[in-house]
Amino acid sequence: MRKNYLLTPGPTPLPPQVLEAMSRPIIHHRTPQFQAVLKEATEGLKYIYQTRNDVFILASSGTGAMEASAVNILSPGDTALVIQGGKFGERWTEICKAYAINTEIINVEWGKAVNPLDIENKLKSNPEIKAVFTTLCETSTGVASNIEAIGKMVKGTDAVLVVDAISGLGAIDLKTDDWGADMVVSGSQKGLMLPPGLGFISVSPKAFKLIEASKSPRYYFDLRKAKKALDKTDTPFTPAITLVIALNEVLKMMKQDGLEAIFLRHKTMADATRAAVKSLGLKLFAPEAGSDVVTAVCVPEAIDGEKLVKTMRDTYGVTIAGGQDELKGKVFRIAHMGFIEEFDIITGISCLEKVLTQMGYKFALGTGVKAAEEIFLKS
Amino acid sequence: MRKNYLLTPGPTPLPPQVLEAMSRPIIHHRTPQFQAVLKEATEGLKYIYQTRNDVFILASSGTGAMEASAVNILSPGDTALVIQGGKFGERWTEICKAYAINTEIINVEWGKAVNPLDIENKLKSNPEIKAVFTTLCETSTGVASNIEAIGKMVKGTDAVLVVDAISGLGAIDLKTDDWGADMVVSGSQKGLMLPPGLGFISVSPKAFKLIEASKSPRYYFDLRKAKKALDKTDTPFTPAITLVIALNEVLKMMKQDGLEAIFLRHKTMADATRAAVKSLGLKLFAPEAGSDVVTAVCVPEAIDGEKLVKTMRDTYGVTIAGGQDELKGKVFRIAHMGFIEEFDIITGISCLEKVLTQMGYKFALGTGVKAAEEIFLKS
Repeated sequence: MRKNYLLTPGPTPLPPQVLEAMSRPIIHHRTPQFQAVLKEATEGLKYIYQTRNDVFILASSGTGAMEASAVNILSPGDTALVIQGGKFGERWTEICKAYAINTEIINVEWGKAVNPLDIENKLKSNPEIKAVFTTLCETSTGVASNIEAIGKMVKGTDAVLVVDAISGLGAIDLKTDDWGADMVVSGSQKGLMLPPGLGFISVSPKAFKLIEASKSPRYYFDLRKAKKALDKTDTPFTPAITLVIALNEVLKMMKQDGLEAIFLRHKTMADATRAAVKSLGLKLFAPEAGSDVVTAVCVPEAIDGEKLVKTMRDTYGVTIAGGQDELKGKVFRIAHMGFIEEFDIITGISCLEKVLTQMGYKFALGTGVKAAEEIFLKS
Repeated sequence: MRKNYLLTPGPTPLPPQVLEAMSRPIIHHRTPQFQAVLKEATEGLKYIYQTRNDVFILASSGTGAMEASAVNILSPGDTALVIQGGKFGERWTEICKAYAINTEIINVEWGKAVNPLDIENKLKSNPEIKAVFTTLCETSTGVASNIEAIGKMVKGTDAVLVVDAISGLGAIDLKTDDWGADMVVSGSQKGLMLPPGLGFISVSPKAFKLIEASKSPRYYFDLRKAKKALDKTDTPFTPAITLVIALNEVLKMMKQDGLEAIFLRHKTMADATRAAVKSLGLKLFAPEAGSDVVTAVCVPEAIDGEKLVKTMRDTYGVTIAGGQDELKGKVFRIAHMGFIEEFDIITGISCLEKVLTQMGYKFALGTGVKAAEEIFLKS
């Protein structure tokens, strides 16, 4: 017997309502029954997105939706500004490169957030920039961007603001319309508490104009087709029916809780996690710009970071994430997003304390859990 | 209380093993646990595909996998031959057009199969043709192509043979290696008895050479990335974890039954369906080239075809498919594919008899069911 705990930044654990919805007999997608689900899910997404814009549901993982946003608004030879402060910022650059879109890059030190003024300067010095690609929460480092401030810089220009909100949507605040996020890309397996397999994109009227003009080749991800279908409450190709039905259940749950309560829950869990690891004498990788969805923690010297993560998972059933790319072995990441709550965090910290002790790291056992409890008690 | 029966050519009904697998707590994809599943599922797919080639699992619906096959082997300005005898043959042409690939088209009358000699002639008269795009079973008309014969025509040339086997794989015979199918594209929601959301592609060594040379832009569907990942039992982007786990369960079931038994079950159901509708005085839309996965039946004059399908579904819970595009209202389609067996066909025919009678069509009640029973009894 072993119980498993998932504290990873995607996939996040699935609520029983999702498991139940996915274990129902399947229905056909060209039926009034599925149309009703699609309509309700699309409306529910608008609530989570805080938008009146169209939101499209794609059968793909988040990266597919990122590609869709880029190829639908930019043509080969166009210029985009990419904010690059981690693995997922780099993905924007890779996508642009694959489609012959020129990139201006703002390289942000991993663990830091971009300074919105740097974006303003770039936009002023290069009026060719048609789109700004940003990341709401850079999962590889745990850093959250100030999309509100970035939106103010982009709003007055001809450029559109594209936000990768795969990590963060439905977990931390993102006022799509009020902040001027023209395209917001997301996925199912993070704040939305579903298995991976769905991508989402919202499109503002300003971005729609670029879609009409874009000369980049696309078919499966062609948002002109998606728009035509959505206007008839349909999808251009067979949707991932089961996941859309489960999405609808999740959105109902989230509406019932309300965005404010959801954001507060995430903030409290993040505060508790940060307090706990600091009380153990560990250093946060992003002490100033840490997001409320995932916390990256520096592995102390003399501790094998990969072994730490592996032991927690393979010996005790608690899965957290290690570092990616240049952070491999140097950080570990604890997610506090989606269907994760107070006692999951307590479990994660408790297991971390256990394995750190076994690996020879010195601290007073129980310190981390106590620090987290203090935060939860106050909230 | 109403029970629902799904006799549509995708999605097909889900076995309880699939529902159970999807209702398990989710696991993370970068774990030995998921790697073991991915490895086993990939091997299982090779059995179904009857191939030693690599088979890739994509998080997309079948159309995404079709696009992936085209953009990975052809560059803008290249020429492809498309066999077009229905809605899904036309999709190949649309994909080529979107990516500036020139097309030679063999237009086949809807309801007929392509003559392989026509393909041979085209290949001889136009040595520029780099790829031949075909459809194993054209779902819109129910027609099966003779891939074995087509393979013989293509084998000796420089062109690669690409087969859309979205409908048909795991239901009717397709000897990928023996017949020389260089790329076989499929999806999860048909013969493989899963919800939609997974696409599959097999790639022969001959096709791999084109992949290295292709200049078409691609990122999410880049099979070079997929190959690199597969060699480490990984995926380039987050896979649709739940569906891959369910796929693995289905593949175990299918291996246990064995391909021969599966193909025979489909043939028997198809024979029974054809015998039943003919005994009711109805005409098959594809009397000579009808596939064993879906049967298209001409709607008799004076009967409203759309109303027939709607009444069966909305009043009696039996969902069959209507006609698509130019066949709207002119045919209905009964699927006998995937997790469908003898008594599902009996149910479908019985409901058809009931509604046809109610709509004023004259025949002796029970005739269709009897004809089907005779086939099943003999098998």
